[in-house]
Amino acid sequence: MSDAYARSGVNIGEGNRAVQLMKDAVRSTHDARVLAGIGAFGGMFDASALKAMAAPVLVASTDGVGTKTKVAAAMGRWETIGQDLVNHCVNDILAQGAQPLFFMDYIAASKLDAGQAATVVTGMAVACRENGLALLGGETAEMPGVYVDGEMDVAGTIVGVVDRTQAIDGTRVAAGDVILGLPSNGLHTNGYSLARRALAGLDWYIQRADLGASIGDALLAVHRSYLTQFRKLDAASVRMHGIAHITGGGLLENVPRVMPNDLAAVFHVGAWPVPPIFELIRQHLGDVARDDLYRAFNMGLGLCVVVARVDASRALSALGEGTLVGEITRRAGPAVVLEA
Amino acid sequence: MSDAYARSGVNIGEGNRAVQLMKDAVRSTHDARVLAGIGAFGGMFDASALKAMAAPVLVASTDGVGTKTKVAAAMGRWETIGQDLVNHCVNDILAQGAQPLFFMDYIAASKLDAGQAATVVTGMAVACRENGLALLGGETAEMPGVYVDGEMDVAGTIVGVVDRTQAIDGTRVAAGDVILGLPSNGLHTNGYSLARRALAGLDWYIQRADLGASIGDALLAVHRSYLTQFRKLDAASVRMHGIAHITGGGLLENVPRVMPNDLAAVFHVGAWPVPPIFELIRQHLGDVARDDLYRAFNMGLGLCVVVARVDASRALSALGEGTLVGEITRRAGPAVVLEA
Repeated sequence: MSDAYARSGVNIGEGNRAVQLMKDAVRSTHDARVLAGIGAFGGMFDASALKAMAAPVLVASTDGVGTKTKVAAAMGRWETIGQDLVNHCVNDILAQGAQPLFFMDYIAASKLDAGQAATVVTGMAVACRENGLALLGGETAEMPGVYVDGEMDVAGTIVGVVDRTQAIDGTRVAAGDVILGLPSNGLHTNGYSLARRALAGLDWYIQRADLGASIGDALLAVHRSYLTQFRKLDAASVRMHGIAHITGGGLLENVPRVMPNDLAAVFHVGAWPVPPIFELIRQHLGDVARDDLYRAFNMGLGLCVVVARVDASRALSALGEGTLVGEITRRAGPAVVLEA
Repeated sequence: MSDAYARSGVNIGEGNRAVQLMKDAVRSTHDARVLAGIGAFGGMFDASALKAMAAPVLVASTDGVGTKTKVAAAMGRWETIGQDLVNHCVNDILAQGAQPLFFMDYIAASKLDAGQAATVVTGMAVACRENGLALLGGETAEMPGVYVDGEMDVAGTIVGVVDRTQAIDGTRVAAGDVILGLPSNGLHTNGYSLARRALAGLDWYIQRADLGASIGDALLAVHRSYLTQFRKLDAASVRMHGIAHITGGGLLENVPRVMPNDLAAVFHVGAWPVPPIFELIRQHLGDVARDDLYRAFNMGLGLCVVVARVDASRALSALGEGTLVGEITRRAGPAVVLEA
């Protein structure tokens, strides 16, 4: 380690120690397709399987976990932030019908804590194994003076693939279709700045009857991956017309991304259970418009799948969960209508 | 825009404004291979061309620009940080012989400045066009309380491809080979924390005779892409045994990444010109070991290419620049030897 460099705030030794701690976790996600991982300038992933596709399309998404990191920091629990991030990204490309291939991570802090960074990466590895993708590489950056002391940012990029004929882009969505909603585990990775403000005065450690958990536990509940559910629908030959991953912007901004402009999505509020954490947040926000809640939070729906009405019951029985939460109509006003 | 959300520090409206400002720049990097970009959950990139390869291998790298962002912030000049990032990543996968396909960016700050974020992305687009890759997607995150006010972090992921038989992994490097060094433009993206500390007491705005520029200009000089030079070597059928991109860790840590363990790289210090910014930094660091400089900085070499000695002069004439800076020997001590 360079002493001169250490004095300027960048600790190359701690970075190397983090890499050592992460190695086993990262390698646990590798199979024969990973030709070069840790230590190489670039991760190398065998893409020969794409040759068997009629028209392979790479689908990529970059995302972070927002200020869920501040909840992790407040609770001192970094084990699941990596899962949040990977699962979020898996769902993003799933929305276009793509299967994940590999993941690249980015972790940065003002001062690197090798153990904490390794804990986050180990969480990423858990989710990568669960979803069958490789944690191919990443960057751990120490940026003195850019990050607030003790804070950390966690972001990543997923790359997956779909055969062009199988890609889902929402163009098949038609009036008369129905919307199936799959339950979220909580906030997933969106709305944390607002939630933290609302709940700031409460005890985050005590077990609460209304939540069946502590506030800290409820806020850190892991962002679900819907890959298994997607595969169940695919196996049941359910034709998915559109898939919306409900992230920042909620139902109001995410559902319109996957349907033609001349259609509207009408949701039957009350048709699905809203996890109690959202009710607690609402109570403590004071005077807040319902639309604001539905824009900041997923309000209990992590993924919306649009299918033909005739396929709805078959789809729900293949899924073993979820609810018919709304339908697609001709648009007369806003693209999303929340019916009480 | 949600008023409740705005009060908690996250400004969805400013994020949307940033996207609007970036759109044209991003689209300027798109060609027919980009099937979905801005607005989609995942960017979609037509990978049909990979079917023509014997064994396509995807090569990916994630990186940031380190605290070069702090220099940009100090000088109020964000135009070239995006070029730094993209060119850095292009070189990373070039080290394995890969050609770039697309790029995904991540920008985060405590409070988003749409104009500043758009300026950075516009710089990325410039470099993407120059290197022939698509700026396929990205994420702009506002993280109140995670970043220091006024600071911004910029990171990204590149994905490229190489046919497995053409991949460069350093295994061909042999004793007797020579090392060709390609000049850097300055610090590129490494060593900024140390450099800023060394130069903190000086005027960064005034034109200096020793630099032929101001300190601010010299520090913000754009990280070179070596893709064009790589293609010249390839066109001249020069067999490249190993390529090291000289990033964090300098010659001492990057060159060993691309050669077998039983070999050493011997550099003839003085054989290549060292840009004056490094001499200025050295003067102001006070008592600093030479190895520390060569670990923190590229010291004038941005890329090292290892070739057979017999190919050296043909390679240098194809490149039209660069110097024979060292050779590969059997290893007796350290993996990198700096000969005075």
